[in-house]
Parts: sequence; C-alpha cells; structure tokens
Amino acid sequence: MEALRKKIEQEGEVLSETVLKVDSFLNHQIDPKLMVEIGNEFARRFKDEGITKVVTIESSGIAPAVMTALKLNVPVVFARKRKSLTLSDDLYEAEVYSFTKKVSNHIVVSGNFVTKDDHVLLIDDFLANGQAMKGLMTIVQQAGASLGGIGIVIEKGFQRGGADLREQGYRVESLAIVDRLSPGEPIEFRNQ
Amino acid sequence: MEALRKKIEQEGEVLSETVLKVDSFLNHQIDPKLMVEIGNEFARRFKDEGITKVVTIESSGIAPAVMTALKLNVPVVFARKRKSLTLSDDLYEAEVYSFTKKVSNHIVVSGNFVTKDDHVLLIDDFLANGQAMKGLMTIVQQAGASLGGIGIVIEKGFQRGGADLREQGYRVESLAIVDRLSPGEPIEFRNQ
Repeated sequence: MEALRKKIEQEGEVLSETVLKVDSFLNHQIDPKLMVEIGNEFARRFKDEGITKVVTIESSGIAPAVMTALKLNVPVVFARKRKSLTLSDDLYEAEVYSFTKKVSNHIVVSGNFVTKDDHVLLIDDFLANGQAMKGLMTIVQQAGASLGGIGIVIEKGFQRGGADLREQGYRVESLAIVDRLSPGEPIEFRNQ
Repeated sequence: MEALRKKIEQEGEVLSETVLKVDSFLNHQIDPKLMVEIGNEFARRFKDEGITKVVTIESSGIAPAVMTALKLNVPVVFARKRKSLTLSDDLYEAEVYSFTKKVSNHIVVSGNFVTKDDHVLLIDDFLANGQAMKGLMTIVQQAGASLGGIGIVIEKGFQRGGADLREQGYRVESLAIVDRLSPGEPIEFRNQ
C-alpha cells in the first residue's frame, strides 16, 4: 500500500535492527485519513470472505480495525490486556508474551461478542514474532468461531510471525512488509 | 444525541447505581457506524473552535476520538496509561486515579505530538468524577497548549466531574447525560 509505505519512509524512526517507531501516525498519534485508507484496503482484500466480526487488541489495533469494520459493515471487538488471569465462565483468554516490552499479558474477550457463528477477521498494527496473533487465534478457537483471515498494517518480514502463519495455511495480508531495519539507513520494504 | 441515547437504553446494563456497562458498542465491542455519528456530532459542535488536535486516553476513547479527528481534519493523540519502551524523553505525564478500578495510572503523552501551538479538543468515552479529564488537562497545560473544549460520549450527571468542569468555565459537550442509574429500572437521562 503506497500511501502507508511513504508514510513509514517519511516518519518511521529506525531505533534498532528490530524496532521501528511509528508513533507519529499509528502508535501514539494517529492519522485518521490514513486509517480510513488502511481500513478500505483491508475491506477490499477481505470483502469476499463473509466476515461477521473484526477482532483486534487494544490499543494500537483499534483505529485500523474500526475503519475496516466500518467498511465491511460489521462490529469490531478489541481484546483487553490484563496483568493476571481473570477466571470467569464467559471469558475467552490467552497469554501473550511481548518481546518488545518483555512482559506477559493475558488478553481477554467476552463470550458475548465472539461466538461460534462468527467468521472473524483479525487486525493488528504490527506482526513480528506473531505472539499477539497467536493469542487472538486461541481466543477465536475457544469461541468456536472460524478465522477468515489476518490483516496486518506493518509486518516485520525478518521475524518469523508472518512466515509461520502463512506456512500453516492462514491468509495473512500485510499492507507493508519491512525486510530490513538498520539505524541510519533507508528502510528496506518487500516488493508486494 | 438520539441514536446514542437509544443505544444506551437498548444495550446498556445497569450494574449498580454508579456502573453502566456499555460493552456491546463502546467499551469492548464497538459499533463503527455509531462512532461515525458520534465523531460527526462532536465535530459539528466544535467546528468553530479552531481545534488543531484531538487528544484522548487509551483504549475506549480512541474510536470516538479518531472519528472526530477525521471529521475535523486534524490528527488524534491517545495518552498511554503507562510508559512504553519506545517512548523516550520529552514526555508529559499525569497521575489518574480510577474510582471504578481503584488503581492509579500514569498517563503519558509525548512532547512531539502536543505542543504550545496546539488548540486541543479532549475526547473521552465516560465522564464521572473527572479524574481522567483532569489528567488530560494537566498534560495540555504541561505542553503549553490551549484547551478548546471537552467532548464526552456518556456523562454520569450524578457525579461531580461535569459540573465541576463547567463551573470552572470549560466547555463540556456530553452527547448523553445519565442522571440516575438503578438496577432493574429505566435509565434516567437529562433532557438536552
């Protein structure tokens, strides 16, 4: 997606060989028009999948997920992060380890909002090692829902998450794939 | 705002005399079309204020804030509830006590994204005691920015936050004001 790639080139900060900071338009400040374009693009790619619900994780997934859900005309659910296990019958829950933040979170979704009748599109801002996505997939499975696809704003192509998911047969659509980060050098994108 | 009021009547759960749960369209599942209507309504009310930035708090403020910012054609910034490893120096920070969750959080905004040149519209999902809003106002002050107004999706009119802010001269626009919650009884709204 050309507009996203340009934005990453212009405003992305390469902090290390694994950390790309996009706080100016996605992770802290949000560019609403870009979110509309991102939502429209995800909706275009998944429009024939019969998606009934978009599911994401707070907080940075919310803006792209809401714009996607708006265009697909379905609700969106954001998984909440919790420090500890919340025991309750009607909650789906998974553990997610963040390599960036070096903490484990539990993510929680209410059973009221993802059910066995749902065909789910998972949306997230970044895909690196795939831990968050695995957590969301666990929740989809617990709910007995089916998975219609995975939409990622920025994939770190040099980490395993995207490749693993595609090898397992999942449809992963990443709007930008970064293949190499090196401070002081231009970001290398995968040609898509 | 009639559509919001109806949605609260139909789907809001009154858990106690102070707790209104709106997890089906705002706080966990999100209704994207309603968020567009909410954003349009805030934008309509504040369109002559010369707003340059919408600021909210993760996570439930993000969807209404993004839709408002989209319509006002400005960026949105969401305050983070704890320090992220990728945010560095030049941070504005305030402490926020949540009466609902009985915990204090620090909320943090990067100095890169709110500056002395900004005229800020603060947006949040709920206003009760006003603690979160005071935290955001502290951050606006630290940044040397000016405050153009406060937009609230649901105000709990029986708590002090909204009245206090209006007494201090701030423009607070709440799209629904709930005056009384009592389990098993209809929700009482203020006529607006």
